[in-house]
Amino acid sequence: MAKLRLDLDFEKGKARIGRMKTPHSEFETPVFMPVGTQATVKSVLPADVLETGSSIILSNAYHLYLRPGPEVIHRAGGLHSFMNWPGSILTDSGGFQIMSLGHSVSITDEAAVFRSHIDGSPIRFSPEDAVRAQVAFGADIIMCLDQCIEYPATYAQAKEATERTILWAERSKKEKVPDCQSLFAIVQGSVFPELRRYCCLELSSLDFPGYGIGGLSVGESKEQFYEVLNYTTEYLPSDKPRYLMGVGHPVDIIEGVLAGVDMFDCVLPTRNARHGIAFTMDGSLNLRNARFSQDFLPIEEGCDCMTCQGFSRSYIRHLLIARESLAWTLISIHNLRFFQRFMEIVRRRLADGTLLNFRHHIAQVYSG
Amino acid sequence: MAKLRLDLDFEKGKARIGRMKTPHSEFETPVFMPVGTQATVKSVLPADVLETGSSIILSNAYHLYLRPGPEVIHRAGGLHSFMNWPGSILTDSGGFQIMSLGHSVSITDEAAVFRSHIDGSPIRFSPEDAVRAQVAFGADIIMCLDQCIEYPATYAQAKEATERTILWAERSKKEKVPDCQSLFAIVQGSVFPELRRYCCLELSSLDFPGYGIGGLSVGESKEQFYEVLNYTTEYLPSDKPRYLMGVGHPVDIIEGVLAGVDMFDCVLPTRNARHGIAFTMDGSLNLRNARFSQDFLPIEEGCDCMTCQGFSRSYIRHLLIARESLAWTLISIHNLRFFQRFMEIVRRRLADGTLLNFRHHIAQVYSG
Repeated sequence: MAKLRLDLDFEKGKARIGRMKTPHSEFETPVFMPVGTQATVKSVLPADVLETGSSIILSNAYHLYLRPGPEVIHRAGGLHSFMNWPGSILTDSGGFQIMSLGHSVSITDEAAVFRSHIDGSPIRFSPEDAVRAQVAFGADIIMCLDQCIEYPATYAQAKEATERTILWAERSKKEKVPDCQSLFAIVQGSVFPELRRYCCLELSSLDFPGYGIGGLSVGESKEQFYEVLNYTTEYLPSDKPRYLMGVGHPVDIIEGVLAGVDMFDCVLPTRNARHGIAFTMDGSLNLRNARFSQDFLPIEEGCDCMTCQGFSRSYIRHLLIARESLAWTLISIHNLRFFQRFMEIVRRRLADGTLLNFRHHIAQVYSG
Repeated sequence: MAKLRLDLDFEKGKARIGRMKTPHSEFETPVFMPVGTQATVKSVLPADVLETGSSIILSNAYHLYLRPGPEVIHRAGGLHSFMNWPGSILTDSGGFQIMSLGHSVSITDEAAVFRSHIDGSPIRFSPEDAVRAQVAFGADIIMCLDQCIEYPATYAQAKEATERTILWAERSKKEKVPDCQSLFAIVQGSVFPELRRYCCLELSSLDFPGYGIGGLSVGESKEQFYEVLNYTTEYLPSDKPRYLMGVGHPVDIIEGVLAGVDMFDCVLPTRNARHGIAFTMDGSLNLRNARFSQDFLPIEEGCDCMTCQGFSRSYIRHLLIARESLAWTLISIHNLRFFQRFMEIVRRRLADGTLLNFRHHIAQVYSG
């Protein structure tokens, strides 16, 4: 089982195209990772996720730590075996989820203490706990626990959380991690350039095999988001993978690629599917709309996904209106394939110098 | 496109084994038909239904008439095309669903008049409407509209409904049905032997290509059910398919086979799946039970279904507890395959003379 490897084949400005290899799969970067928070990409069988062209998925250590717990997954032979997923897995540590718990969480240098969102029981979750749980899960890429910073935050709040994120990364690095797993650190710093720079440099000096960029797309303006992102990637080592956490709107993915990001994840393909929203290269469709009741075209003409090969907008609308869960499955499969096709186009357009034209088109059809 | 054909290969007592051919598939009888009420076998992709060994499914004219309506399905190219199902389809007419509406329905010789269970709008549904809708849907086998009789019913009530069911069958037979579709009549008569016999003889004289046995398993005792069933099949032509409607509990299927039934349908495989209940040859399992949390066996050892090839009881329990819809999909696939494996065993045991031993085992493990 080889460790993580990223070979860069093409660079233009800060953007780059490469191939990443983990013990479970090899794939082109920039890559989009579907989200399987609770050890399932919602409503889609693993073989069907694979058929969308997805090679690496994300799951969530915070959720799996609470339920079913590290022991169950470890005894199952790890997360790949537990969920029957043959590709690569990245587990997020839970910093973002803990931030989302709001006032019920208390964070000290020692650990985050909070109440479980499932049953209210008290939980103490330290950076060491996060690494140990992720070692039990056995994901190819695992993440240090970070303190994700809400927006807006004062400079003092952001500084404290950034210092703690660095401290936790140092302690995480001391935990024993098997050779087949790679531990990434996470950059925080809110929208303060000097904190972002400081965090990047401190974490880089610890020499992690890859870096997540966290605390973005949490409420700041698009301008701030893109500016901080571009500033942050300046200070990360260019030979290591960069992962922009939780960001996956098509326009934001292109901005991330231009800023030099290699990896993206987002719940949009499956979450939007459950609301009847399908992605296409010409914008999104709300398939609950009555205008689709006798529309016998596939979701997107020319799409090669399993859904578009056999099912019409009319049928999927019928399933949505009848509240049949097969609707979520069919739209999720299309949306997951959309994001893989989208990344193929982004990589090709980057290589042939026309990515800015594509960004213009996507920004137009996905505005508002 | 050949019309319906049933070739009987083996007979023992009243029970028989055969091969049925419709314009869309050929399969062995006695056969189990999964239910796709709203043009979807709930939570399972059609290709995965096919992989369970299912060749014919049931859908429901009453539900599809109300939503999305005959026009949509006809314009889609028929129900096979609409739902992307390559096998055979039988559509039930809706007699049972109309009975289930209870007091809000008024039935005359002309038609059933009721309020839609979806939006309360008034609906008038005649036997002619039922045939025309099913012609628009294009199912291989379609059913006459019947007046299903609640249990208990007085003799007078049962007689009136039985007479009306015969009258409606006569009128249904006058409707134009394409060569590729076969119209079955439905036997009613509640638990009154003379009404069952009368209905069988009247419908037989109309020479339908097959016969449904309706109005059973609606509240009567098991003894009454088996007795009436055995009495009813005595008076049906032996060379025509016999379909015991809505009956699918494993023990009842064996009783049906012994009484000479060729076709069964039931919602149990998919409905029980949504409650976490899996069928096995040694009884059912409630996979929500805590004892499965670290049980890494498949649902049923030796089962060749897609679920048992890749997923453990522990994982499926986790999905159930986390309310992930993939649990329904995985258990449904297993349960659908269980019913096909069950029918294979029933046919083999019938052929080799050991079906009564198998009935004894199944009655024991599925008692109470």
